[in-house]
Amino acid sequence: MSVTSPAGPSAATIDAIKEKARRLAILSMMSTTAAGSGHPTSCMSAAELMAGTFFYAMKIDPKNPNGNDSDRFVMSKGHAAPILYAALAEAGLFPASRVMTLREFSSELEGHPTPRIPGVDAATGSLGQGLSVAAGLAIGARLDKSPTRVYVLLGDGEMAEGQIWEAAAFAGYYKLDNLTVIADVNALGQSQPTMYQHDMEVYRKKFEAEGFATEVIDGHDVAAVLAALDRAKAAKGRPQAIVARTVKGHGFSQVAGKENWHGKPFPKEMLAQAIQERGGPIDVPADPGRSYERKSLPKPPDFPAPAAPDYDPGKAVATREAYGFALKRLGAVNPHIVALSGDVKNSTFSEIFQNAYPDHFYQGYIAEQNLVSLAVGLAARGKVPFADTFACFLSRAYDNARMAAISRSNINLCGSHCGVSIGEDGPSQMALEDLAMFRAIHGSAVLYPSDAVSTERLTEAMARRAGVNYMRTSRPKTAILYSKDEKFPIPGFKVVRQSPQDKVTVIGAGVTLHEALKAADELKAQGTGVRVVDLYCVKPIDGNALAEQIKATGGRLVTVEDHWPEGGIGEAVLGALSQAGSPPAKYRMLAVRDMPHSGKPDELVEAFGISARHIAAAVREIA
Amino acid sequence: MSVTSPAGPSAATIDAIKEKARRLAILSMMSTTAAGSGHPTSCMSAAELMAGTFFYAMKIDPKNPNGNDSDRFVMSKGHAAPILYAALAEAGLFPASRVMTLREFSSELEGHPTPRIPGVDAATGSLGQGLSVAAGLAIGARLDKSPTRVYVLLGDGEMAEGQIWEAAAFAGYYKLDNLTVIADVNALGQSQPTMYQHDMEVYRKKFEAEGFATEVIDGHDVAAVLAALDRAKAAKGRPQAIVARTVKGHGFSQVAGKENWHGKPFPKEMLAQAIQERGGPIDVPADPGRSYERKSLPKPPDFPAPAAPDYDPGKAVATREAYGFALKRLGAVNPHIVALSGDVKNSTFSEIFQNAYPDHFYQGYIAEQNLVSLAVGLAARGKVPFADTFACFLSRAYDNARMAAISRSNINLCGSHCGVSIGEDGPSQMALEDLAMFRAIHGSAVLYPSDAVSTERLTEAMARRAGVNYMRTSRPKTAILYSKDEKFPIPGFKVVRQSPQDKVTVIGAGVTLHEALKAADELKAQGTGVRVVDLYCVKPIDGNALAEQIKATGGRLVTVEDHWPEGGIGEAVLGALSQAGSPPAKYRMLAVRDMPHSGKPDELVEAFGISARHIAAAVREIA
Repeated sequence: MSVTSPAGPSAATIDAIKEKARRLAILSMMSTTAAGSGHPTSCMSAAELMAGTFFYAMKIDPKNPNGNDSDRFVMSKGHAAPILYAALAEAGLFPASRVMTLREFSSELEGHPTPRIPGVDAATGSLGQGLSVAAGLAIGARLDKSPTRVYVLLGDGEMAEGQIWEAAAFAGYYKLDNLTVIADVNALGQSQPTMYQHDMEVYRKKFEAEGFATEVIDGHDVAAVLAALDRAKAAKGRPQAIVARTVKGHGFSQVAGKENWHGKPFPKEMLAQAIQERGGPIDVPADPGRSYERKSLPKPPDFPAPAAPDYDPGKAVATREAYGFALKRLGAVNPHIVALSGDVKNSTFSEIFQNAYPDHFYQGYIAEQNLVSLAVGLAARGKVPFADTFACFLSRAYDNARMAAISRSNINLCGSHCGVSIGEDGPSQMALEDLAMFRAIHGSAVLYPSDAVSTERLTEAMARRAGVNYMRTSRPKTAILYSKDEKFPIPGFKVVRQSPQDKVTVIGAGVTLHEALKAADELKAQGTGVRVVDLYCVKPIDGNALAEQIKATGGRLVTVEDHWPEGGIGEAVLGALSQAGSPPAKYRMLAVRDMPHSGKPDELVEAFGISARHIAAAVREIA
Repeated sequence: MSVTSPAGPSAATIDAIKEKARRLAILSMMSTTAAGSGHPTSCMSAAELMAGTFFYAMKIDPKNPNGNDSDRFVMSKGHAAPILYAALAEAGLFPASRVMTLREFSSELEGHPTPRIPGVDAATGSLGQGLSVAAGLAIGARLDKSPTRVYVLLGDGEMAEGQIWEAAAFAGYYKLDNLTVIADVNALGQSQPTMYQHDMEVYRKKFEAEGFATEVIDGHDVAAVLAALDRAKAAKGRPQAIVARTVKGHGFSQVAGKENWHGKPFPKEMLAQAIQERGGPIDVPADPGRSYERKSLPKPPDFPAPAAPDYDPGKAVATREAYGFALKRLGAVNPHIVALSGDVKNSTFSEIFQNAYPDHFYQGYIAEQNLVSLAVGLAARGKVPFADTFACFLSRAYDNARMAAISRSNINLCGSHCGVSIGEDGPSQMALEDLAMFRAIHGSAVLYPSDAVSTERLTEAMARRAGVNYMRTSRPKTAILYSKDEKFPIPGFKVVRQSPQDKVTVIGAGVTLHEALKAADELKAQGTGVRVVDLYCVKPIDGNALAEQIKATGGRLVTVEDHWPEGGIGEAVLGALSQAGSPPAKYRMLAVRDMPHSGKPDELVEAFGISARHIAAAVREIA
């Protein structure tokens, strides 16, 4: 059905697309009525746009719709999932009857799209993220020198999200001319009309300001839609925006353009009237059929072992710097790696990778939401993305990380400058909640290396591991702890000090691991043996293995972290030990409890309760 | 020094401002050199802009710079803190010698601004948030019918943050003509030049597209700066943007316009040269003097008790709906309340408040970052903001909540539609990490009412409590549990089922509290007594009081939450009990462990392990 002709689409083509639009609209209405929930009016405004995009512009291989030779589509306005599913069905990916299982407990066709569904690359439903995902797919296609295109459908309500404009600026700056944005401007948000309603010029100016080849069309005029799609394909050197004036609930007079119909399915009698107005019933077999859930989701591609870390054991190296060296070593053996930074590559050291592989590095500028969702798009094309910024600024992208997990995406995030140990910059730059944040991301790994060697090995592990992987790096230089042959399994931890008479186990990581070693040495000199554990993997934790260590010290435990008390190492350990049936007998949790301020790193570590002195005092309390 | 003349500033005024600019630049350089860290070149590009704003345009009362009769200034590019401090010193808020204590451990003048410092309303340092704060201050001034103005200085690197454009759209839409944006476009970001460098027309178009009265000027031409400030003051009906072309490191030839000088103080010899080029030394007394830390920070104003909740004990009411009624009742006794919603007022029920007090409600549209930072601005003017959206979408504003805590801000956030119990919409709309998120916000309260009565009492408690207060509400209707006279202290919990022979304590909240009651009733009928605790306050927790309950059931405990296992009720309880020296003897943590999908609420609660059936099974395991 994809036919692009220099003379423009024929009358027959236009009619065929009109019929597709009709069918998509009706299937959206039918499926939401059957489900008893969903957003039919949000689908109806997009019917002609979806029909034109799927059945005129895009080239989709129904046998491999997520493959790198298919054009890709992102439904950024995720609540219009029903019409996406209708389009995928019409495109031959599964029967239309499957669409009727929308929102059922046992159906892969969920209320909002997820990659369980063929043809869907990333979960949407949290608005404003899809253009970033599309830009990531577009960069991926460019890196692959693929002629495929990326299309993304935006709603106008969601264009209030700043991330849309981060992504638009990025796409414009990088001249992603394989990217077409279609904006469904139906003037009505969830609770009331949008800010600009049908002032189309506002949207035109916004996209033009970002460097898009932009046009405004009537989104229900199929000939206009198809002509715009043709012109978009022909536009070189700029991404394109087709800003379509549409009507929410278009095609059914009882709801078209009326407020208070967002997210409301039509009762059965209304549905019958709607179908009538929309040209009469379509055939949908009754049998829902089997599930079409994708059998396997993308996993990071395997790659040969990189060169071993080669640090001089006598020289301190910051884990943030080791991250940069790690990326560079990985880049030599893994051509899929793409690094992205939020204008801090000289602080996070991804610039070491950039200098070696400049074509595989993208400057994200100061726009963290876009940074993380770009990674999701890249991963959907088989890339292995590593995105970095200060750990505290990843909190700007928490919803993006959350959606990445729902997307079953394989992305790697590195947050530097964790904790009070960054020093004089003060609390706005100190991540003290990032362990809690990333532990609460489904399926994540949370890694917190304490030296350069483990940093390199864990960065490699991230590139191999599916899911959302987060690494926390520190600003200060720290001593090398491990030989280059040491292995760092996930889950796992290292016992870095032990003796048969250890009285207390102290668990730390990063800067506090080194403080714990200082404390242990001091206590040992005074006759108290302390077992020190480097919890380089904060999630997942093997509670049974950890419990063994604490049992060996009579159940006496101190945890110490450059992080708030909530949700970090202490609570993770307590949870894991409790799960293993071995809660500590005597326990002290050292963490940052008061709001920090500026100061030298050492001053702050001492003042905020996580220094060697505090650790030693806690050990003495319970030994 | 604030002189606005219809004929424009006199030559003497211009010279005086030039001298101020010189002094501000020099003090920025001196203080960062003394500190050994900081961002002098980012200050130097803003010297004339700051001088003009502070000493020509703004009316500041040095005795009450944070008072509602002062013009307000937000340093959105927070790393330019030194020049802000220099300006505040020149304005008479504290001696210039105090500025020389920049970044010292014992100084209130931190690396990035916080409200510990007179004249500072909100902490900045995480870029892109200041325009939203300024818009909140501007709305506050408008609500107070105050003629005061708000000025905000943006950097160009930070204009890549989408939140800037959320805030700009908001300001333009609401025609905040008491708001002047000054953009310091110095072309150089942290790690490399910005996207647009000195293409000033891009910025002009962006601000014009948002409805700002916009002009582009040479940011080092004092006469031009002052004239632009005059025109901004005269602009009616639109916010204003003065987009200034500047040079990073302006005034010192060794660094002006050169890359690689971001965040680098000048060594002593260079400083001497810089001062020389900038016109010679200024006098700064050696004695740093005492601290000028603000003695008291804003607290929410007291107010009379609202009308009591009046629910029919026999009718189920969703806690999300009770929130709306609560706001309305509060609005009748507290004129400072302002409600804001992210286009979901009909789902979160803040529309109940809007209908009663339309002038105190602002539609935030779908822009959660802006929503939360607006609240910070409002709070700085003594308002009591309540901002709402779906709980999962508050993850879009996590950095904003983080900065609100550093701001010691008094804001109230309500997140609805928590957990799998929302049903068919699926995981993109389900908050499963919000308890972890908000527990890890310094000084926060995390409230999770299980019925309408407690919802109302806790909403009132939020309006009285300083800090970041978060309430999690549920979608489904639930039974009334409490009489209208019940009190809900913070911290606190309610024992809703107990008997002398209780075998196990079950702690739940929200939907799982009701599941726990079902389970308890079933188990009681089978002869097993179960104590049920409603943990309506998840943070803070009185560990000793809770430990008493669990001791009464022999240390046997089940926690159950519509949330991931990480960082939520289970870990909070474990941490509190451990802190109290009373870890549970036998413990089962019920939580959502697998990625959910669509389905009916009851189906999902059952399938994802948190239903009455699962609770009863867990109790039997350990009873």
